[in-house]
Amino acid sequence: MKLYDATTAPNPRRVRIFLAEKSVEIPTVQVDIAGMENRQPEFLAKNPLAGVPILELDDGSVVAESVAICRYIEALHPAPALFGDTPAAQGRVEMWNRRMEMNLMMPISGVFRHGHPFFKGRIEQVPEFADACRRESQTRLSWLNETLGDGEFIAGDSYSIADITALCAIDFAKVSKIRLADEHLNLKRWYERVSTRPSAAA
Amino acid sequence: MKLYDATTAPNPRRVRIFLAEKSVEIPTVQVDIAGMENRQPEFLAKNPLAGVPILELDDGSVVAESVAICRYIEALHPAPALFGDTPAAQGRVEMWNRRMEMNLMMPISGVFRHGHPFFKGRIEQVPEFADACRRESQTRLSWLNETLGDGEFIAGDSYSIADITALCAIDFAKVSKIRLADEHLNLKRWYERVSTRPSAAA
Repeated sequence: MKLYDATTAPNPRRVRIFLAEKSVEIPTVQVDIAGMENRQPEFLAKNPLAGVPILELDDGSVVAESVAICRYIEALHPAPALFGDTPAAQGRVEMWNRRMEMNLMMPISGVFRHGHPFFKGRIEQVPEFADACRRESQTRLSWLNETLGDGEFIAGDSYSIADITALCAIDFAKVSKIRLADEHLNLKRWYERVSTRPSAAA
Repeated sequence: MKLYDATTAPNPRRVRIFLAEKSVEIPTVQVDIAGMENRQPEFLAKNPLAGVPILELDDGSVVAESVAICRYIEALHPAPALFGDTPAAQGRVEMWNRRMEMNLMMPISGVFRHGHPFFKGRIEQVPEFADACRRESQTRLSWLNETLGDGEFIAGDSYSIADITALCAIDFAKVSKIRLADEHLNLKRWYERVSTRPSAAA
């Protein structure tokens, strides 16, 4: 197996943290996304959508999409379960991971993708959409702070991929100058808890 | 268990098709989303994000997010496997389901959410983003047609949740007047194949 990684982007970090939590090590190569290496024929032959990370298996097939890579790793190394260990937990973790993706990572990414010069020429940017995403990001952070209450982790009592997604989203928000507000006390407690795990350095 | 459904929206249909493929029947109630029933306190107490469908379990807890409901059902009723039956298949299905969500359902939904009067007042609409999503939808349909080739199903040899997501996205596109083009021959063959399965009527 070989992992194609890019340390500057938020999605590859989700996979690195996931692997660290599982204590799984995979040979890794860096892809220069600033230099458009992921848009060259050699990489596009592996993932025509150009997304990083990808996991190349020993038979030459490729698993793209961060969460798909994590699923594959979870199937090979079930413990500790980061997608839930019972049907109810699996449903709950999927729900919360999707909420963190759709309601937190998506608007935060939208600010960057539609507002930052990095994506000029890479996608059709709509600056007004970036502004709307910025407002939505703030609304969602406040919602998450309230919903979290004094809960330990995003999806309940156990650390899960939902915590990884939320951590990577909130850290990635800094590049767009979106930060936790003073009144986000619950979220700050949670952030302290998950960002000091050794895996967060991955 | 009780499923809260809305027959006019694309996401609840994913769950209905999934249940039909599994031959699982769950008592269902309709939520009047046009009448904003999902934005009333009674529904928001079950899902504060207002999304439909949701699955209420017998202990009163709620699984929201269509794919989370499907995951829960898959865990309870593993056969036929619609998320893949081996680690490699699970990674592949997750990859393709996400590609169908992020690269097909998302732009198609973006046209509707940001361009249709139905969402006026429900979200902050950006008409220019709807236009960009329309162009992206067409690009992605052509990409999918090419990628599919003469393959039988989206994620390989077996019908999976990736087919369900793609079918619901393409059918939902009609409301925005986005349709398969004459030259999308591979996609049309696939569409004929999946839309004539009994589950597609769900």
